[in-house]
Amino acid sequence: MTPRINIDGKRLLQRLDDFAKIGATPAGGVNRQALSAEDQASRRLLAELALARGFRIFQDPMANLFIRREGRFPRRAPFMIGSHLDSQPTGGRFDGALGTLAAFEVMESLEDVGIKADVPLEVVAWTNEEGSRFAPGTMGSMAFAAGAIPDAWSDLRGRDGAPFLEELKATLEALPAAEMRPLGFPISGYIELHIEQGPSLEQENTPIGIVYGIQGTRWLEVTIRGQAAHAGTTALEFRRDPMAAAIAALEPLYSSMMPRDPGVRFTVGRFAVEPGSVNAIPGLVTFTIDLRHPETTVIDALENQIRRACDNAAAAAGCRSELTQIFDMPPAVFSEDLLACLDRAAATLGLKTKRMLSGAFHDALFVSRVAPAAMIFVPCRDGLSHNEAEYVEPEHSVTGARMLLAATMEAIVLNA
Amino acid sequence: MTPRINIDGKRLLQRLDDFAKIGATPAGGVNRQALSAEDQASRRLLAELALARGFRIFQDPMANLFIRREGRFPRRAPFMIGSHLDSQPTGGRFDGALGTLAAFEVMESLEDVGIKADVPLEVVAWTNEEGSRFAPGTMGSMAFAAGAIPDAWSDLRGRDGAPFLEELKATLEALPAAEMRPLGFPISGYIELHIEQGPSLEQENTPIGIVYGIQGTRWLEVTIRGQAAHAGTTALEFRRDPMAAAIAALEPLYSSMMPRDPGVRFTVGRFAVEPGSVNAIPGLVTFTIDLRHPETTVIDALENQIRRACDNAAAAAGCRSELTQIFDMPPAVFSEDLLACLDRAAATLGLKTKRMLSGAFHDALFVSRVAPAAMIFVPCRDGLSHNEAEYVEPEHSVTGARMLLAATMEAIVLNA
Repeated sequence: MTPRINIDGKRLLQRLDDFAKIGATPAGGVNRQALSAEDQASRRLLAELALARGFRIFQDPMANLFIRREGRFPRRAPFMIGSHLDSQPTGGRFDGALGTLAAFEVMESLEDVGIKADVPLEVVAWTNEEGSRFAPGTMGSMAFAAGAIPDAWSDLRGRDGAPFLEELKATLEALPAAEMRPLGFPISGYIELHIEQGPSLEQENTPIGIVYGIQGTRWLEVTIRGQAAHAGTTALEFRRDPMAAAIAALEPLYSSMMPRDPGVRFTVGRFAVEPGSVNAIPGLVTFTIDLRHPETTVIDALENQIRRACDNAAAAAGCRSELTQIFDMPPAVFSEDLLACLDRAAATLGLKTKRMLSGAFHDALFVSRVAPAAMIFVPCRDGLSHNEAEYVEPEHSVTGARMLLAATMEAIVLNA
Repeated sequence: MTPRINIDGKRLLQRLDDFAKIGATPAGGVNRQALSAEDQASRRLLAELALARGFRIFQDPMANLFIRREGRFPRRAPFMIGSHLDSQPTGGRFDGALGTLAAFEVMESLEDVGIKADVPLEVVAWTNEEGSRFAPGTMGSMAFAAGAIPDAWSDLRGRDGAPFLEELKATLEALPAAEMRPLGFPISGYIELHIEQGPSLEQENTPIGIVYGIQGTRWLEVTIRGQAAHAGTTALEFRRDPMAAAIAALEPLYSSMMPRDPGVRFTVGRFAVEPGSVNAIPGLVTFTIDLRHPETTVIDALENQIRRACDNAAAAAGCRSELTQIFDMPPAVFSEDLLACLDRAAATLGLKTKRMLSGAFHDALFVSRVAPAAMIFVPCRDGLSHNEAEYVEPEHSVTGARMLLAATMEAIVLNA
């Protein structure tokens, strides 16, 4: 019953090589930061490939790039597949590019055999997923989901000083063949293929991760104030040592947060001490906590636990603790219908899969707020990403694209 | 039997005021850093006072300044009292100055009533006790005890870029009336009066601390290396988190080191994390430990305990720990004979005393390596020092000087 269709693995791998040349770094990675000349060049190449196959191309005001293959019913909301083409300054060849090029490969494969769905299919390359040149990341999908470009971005400048709006304009103008469309429009679903950026699929020898959501992330900043004093002359009973308080607060949190619930991510990434002298009891300690979990209620409860631990430890040390949220991104839960499509697709292909959460943000997070969304992960070597040494076995790239094709078929052809 | 003699409290307090004007800061402290114009001015004032009373003055090549009141037997090794005149950049009026001016007051009081001892008495103002402009501190007494200026100091420059040797030369030349003498010579004993720089005397309402030693200080630097990784995508089992290891190592050390032995001082004053991003598991954590105790064997044992704690915690977290000594100052134990003199002096004066250790270094530490030495502490408000708000009640300054006089009498007159 399934139409005999497969992707062209050789073509996909060649495309990955071709795109890796745009912004290639000597160490084998890519530097293709958002809205840069290299980003524009990669978008032009994709647009040329699309136009050469007769697909229409569109841009919205955020320079999100869409390639459209028409459906039987052009007025239906399109189904979307894709990812991003921009990279970190010392990024890898697969982060974003694999998902975008595999999506285009899916579209070409459908075109190759002439399978038409009721709904239009669109490949998307979202603008500035990485957020390294212009912060924040996932700008394109964020604005798409919001239907507007936030006012705050008007004055934005890149790390290189470049004005965001000018670079955005230049990027839009670099693709005169693309038709303009408004920001945000109804879509019937979205699937994004991406490298895992973690080690679990590789270690468990599983080629496909079926991603059922993106965990919520909350950043906390804890400040503990005590009294700086002489390390030699100040006996324990006279100390108000915020470092001792921080250690006393954090030890039980490290011992309990992650060990008790495998869904928790608890990371202290910044830690600053004042005055910072070998022989001075600190007067001030500030640290950050990156807290993640799939459920907001759990994140709330963990934050309370952290606050209590810091308050109690600070009080016991004669110090005062302050905790503030500096960032909060609620969890995304992906569509059960689309996940079922992914399960069926994997079964059809006989692929071993693992249901998993994404620890990192992706454009799918924002798309999931306006449409059914899901993600497919493929293994990357040693879990390495945001690194020029990032590497995906050709076999895994091809399997990922086959999975994306099969899932797209499930979603828009077989279950339409 | 005791000659009726007392110090002139009013004269001492006036002198403290006069010296506090040299390098006075708007906030009421002093900035009289070693070998600066202000330091030279304070040395000139002390020299003038000494010459006006007919005392001879000497300098050695380290610009340690000596004021000599002759004894009945001029060839006997002199007994020495004093402290230092240099200050921190935002220092207080009493740290060093009190001990030096009280010593000079003792000498003047003996002169006032014509009490002569067998041994000569010398007041000393050691060069660069603070170590803030030129590091290390206690340079003058260190070189005196060693009998030589370390080669390493030849190229030394101050924080302000000033060459040490040039500033030393200028300071020596600023006192042409002083006779030169070699560095290091036999002395029969040394007593130094100093402010406590801690809160215990004030809190226990005790006017005099009899200091029986200076605790040993060892500085350790611990480096824990793990693997930097994404805070969101890296599950616990894949983490090699040096921050978690540092916390796990330090918590039991904070819980045991000081609580179990009141003689221990355990301080983590510096703590650095790389890469230091909110959403990155650190790859490297470095921290310092300032460890103090009166006994070297205990410090050795504590260092071993720290090393084991760090090694074990690092291993448990898949990290590697390295511990290095970056500074080591053995403890000083003061002379029982001189401490007995201090006890008798306090009994004679009817003063409540407390036997105590010094947590901070003092020039007496180095002098104690070549002669019997001891120290007297007086309370300072809130234990505050190295601070423009440093304050000593006039009554405590005068009591300290009376105690120094009585102890000097015990040492060189009554027990000669």
